[in-house]
Amino acid sequence: MSILIKNALIVTQNSKRDVKEGDIYIEDGKIAEIGKVNVEADFVIDGNKRIAMPGLINTHNHVPMTFMRGIADDVDLFEFLNRVWKVEENMTKEDIYRGSLMGIEEMLRTGTTTFVDMYSYEDEVARAVKDKGIRGFLGWAVVDEELTTQGGTPVKNAENFIKEYKGDELVTPLIAPHAVYTCGEETLLKSKEIAEKHHTLITIHIAETRKEVYDHRKKTGMRPVEWLDKIGFLSNRVIGAHMVWLTLHEIKLLSSKGVVASHNPTSNMKLGNGGAMPLPEMLQNGMNVTLGTDSVVSNNNLDMFEVMKFAALLHKNERWDPRATNAQMILDFATVNAAKALKLNAGSIEEGKLADIVILDAREPNAQPLTKDNAISNIVYSINGLNVEYTIVNGKIVYKKN
Amino acid sequence: MSILIKNALIVTQNSKRDVKEGDIYIEDGKIAEIGKVNVEADFVIDGNKRIAMPGLINTHNHVPMTFMRGIADDVDLFEFLNRVWKVEENMTKEDIYRGSLMGIEEMLRTGTTTFVDMYSYEDEVARAVKDKGIRGFLGWAVVDEELTTQGGTPVKNAENFIKEYKGDELVTPLIAPHAVYTCGEETLLKSKEIAEKHHTLITIHIAETRKEVYDHRKKTGMRPVEWLDKIGFLSNRVIGAHMVWLTLHEIKLLSSKGVVASHNPTSNMKLGNGGAMPLPEMLQNGMNVTLGTDSVVSNNNLDMFEVMKFAALLHKNERWDPRATNAQMILDFATVNAAKALKLNAGSIEEGKLADIVILDAREPNAQPLTKDNAISNIVYSINGLNVEYTIVNGKIVYKKN
Repeated sequence: MSILIKNALIVTQNSKRDVKEGDIYIEDGKIAEIGKVNVEADFVIDGNKRIAMPGLINTHNHVPMTFMRGIADDVDLFEFLNRVWKVEENMTKEDIYRGSLMGIEEMLRTGTTTFVDMYSYEDEVARAVKDKGIRGFLGWAVVDEELTTQGGTPVKNAENFIKEYKGDELVTPLIAPHAVYTCGEETLLKSKEIAEKHHTLITIHIAETRKEVYDHRKKTGMRPVEWLDKIGFLSNRVIGAHMVWLTLHEIKLLSSKGVVASHNPTSNMKLGNGGAMPLPEMLQNGMNVTLGTDSVVSNNNLDMFEVMKFAALLHKNERWDPRATNAQMILDFATVNAAKALKLNAGSIEEGKLADIVILDAREPNAQPLTKDNAISNIVYSINGLNVEYTIVNGKIVYKKN
Repeated sequence: MSILIKNALIVTQNSKRDVKEGDIYIEDGKIAEIGKVNVEADFVIDGNKRIAMPGLINTHNHVPMTFMRGIADDVDLFEFLNRVWKVEENMTKEDIYRGSLMGIEEMLRTGTTTFVDMYSYEDEVARAVKDKGIRGFLGWAVVDEELTTQGGTPVKNAENFIKEYKGDELVTPLIAPHAVYTCGEETLLKSKEIAEKHHTLITIHIAETRKEVYDHRKKTGMRPVEWLDKIGFLSNRVIGAHMVWLTLHEIKLLSSKGVVASHNPTSNMKLGNGGAMPLPEMLQNGMNVTLGTDSVVSNNNLDMFEVMKFAALLHKNERWDPRATNAQMILDFATVNAAKALKLNAGSIEEGKLADIVILDAREPNAQPLTKDNAISNIVYSINGLNVEYTIVNGKIVYKKN
């Protein structure tokens, strides 16, 4: 199938971060040509008063939980977890599949073309990914064997899932040891071994709350990142979610090992985790920062446009400095930085890249006025996911507004 | 004209905060009947999978500035003001009218039915209000005579505007002395005198930045609120915008005089004003808190749904406590609290109230699942202004999604 997008304002996210008017021709799942394109295509999209931009990449989600929206607002973490666990106790594999469908529909509706997930039974998530045509980096959640309610051994289940989906066009399997308070050294190192054996990424929650840091120090004498480094877990395969409570020493360790950050500002703020991920220091030390929603139970939606705005404003507020972030930096987090982290040939609109593209309706009043100069500002600060008119993944239209 | 909304999930915001299924019948600009209604109406709205809720009330805006979206992001306040002033230098009355039209279109699109404005030449804003059919509480901005570039005396212009629009159905005039750093005692007391004479409200910026507080203390020996109290300016006519930097003493003064707060979380965070309005203490001391966007130059949109989420999350984050705010509290700020502040017979869906109603499309994935139990959570935490399908002001449909 071929698609021609005519006369759009293209936010390329190429190395020059060009914003320019033009056409985009898509063929065989790739961006074939950009500029003034005169070809016949199977489908033509009118780009007039539209923005074409790279699809957004959400690096932290638990997508099956989408059906739990609104079950645990405005309560402390203890009550939050109680409510989630109570639902999970009675959850079937079909619930996981249906929750995943809901979440994927929302992501496609709001301009996300790729997501990283962590949950048990990612085979059900994979089924929903294939049904809907999004790109999923799916991490089977692993905890110590005595903590699991899954049948079988968690690391074995995870490895079987990886074997099953290795080489799939849309599903990229990875392994997802849950956190230092649910995975001991053996589970973490076994996870690492599986990742190395199958050349996959690893995703894990790191330093989300003060309690996690406090408890881990009490138990091991070390902060989570120090301990993860000591046991040899850290590498450039690791995407650490949250990382709110880090010292400068930990940031330097993470940076030296090439660990990627998945920043989840909306979830962190809603849960009242306190403080804020030390973004300026992470950037100063060369860390690759990306953005995630976390599940809808703490977000409460999967709108990456909203996450971009929260990320930008949280740090301005935290540092009492409007220059602490800027729109281009934040858009990079959600596009090129994330693509680099996932080793995915996407994140920008350039010839030869995967055709993961979002078309925004800039006729909506929240996108006006629109110029080359304020397009990125509008994307980060005024537009939201419901401005999305088309979502294209792998060269196919997977969402189209009625 | 009569309108019948059939089978909607109604978030009433009545004294019991009922959420219930039913019909709403609107006649002659008022809510005539709620429940199971069997009448013929000029226009019928299918409420199936829709939420009907009171229109949102934005208590702080400078709507003509909407055409400046994105001109001053990620810069310090000095550079921010420079860029705004540079545009304002060359601004015509027609620009003010057109900017107002843009902003009003955006407000109606995103579910705001009433707004409070502060700007010069509010006669142009009033023209746009009448053209578009929104409800405007329009405050002619007043500064000391030597600071103005307007023709004539600012307080006189303001009074003339009040006289012209007194008793209008949609435009309620008020007076808007700008701030303590632009209005001396004489200007403030003259503004108060005009407000009392014509029975209008007053709106003013208060304690937005540390600099404002520092400079005022240096000049007068008092913090802004202490000084405003001393000169006799404070009363229950006053809506104070921002109020980020208040002491507990000042909160008690404001509360004792009945001053209303317009909280602008998104603007404050984006400008890096620092800290956060001391919301818990203001509520503990019985202040009436409402919400505003501020202009798009610092917001960068006019979406009150987004402002509600920022308000909720800012204070959870600031206090490291997810219980610092809750969805019902925040929805109250934007509806019943604001209606009370404006002495407007609106803010809830009850028989006899003005028919200022918003219909949200809950078929969008960000609103699903939807139940009576999570409807208010979804409104505050997951829905945004582009979920709006119809906006009704004064019994007339002023926005309808195509």
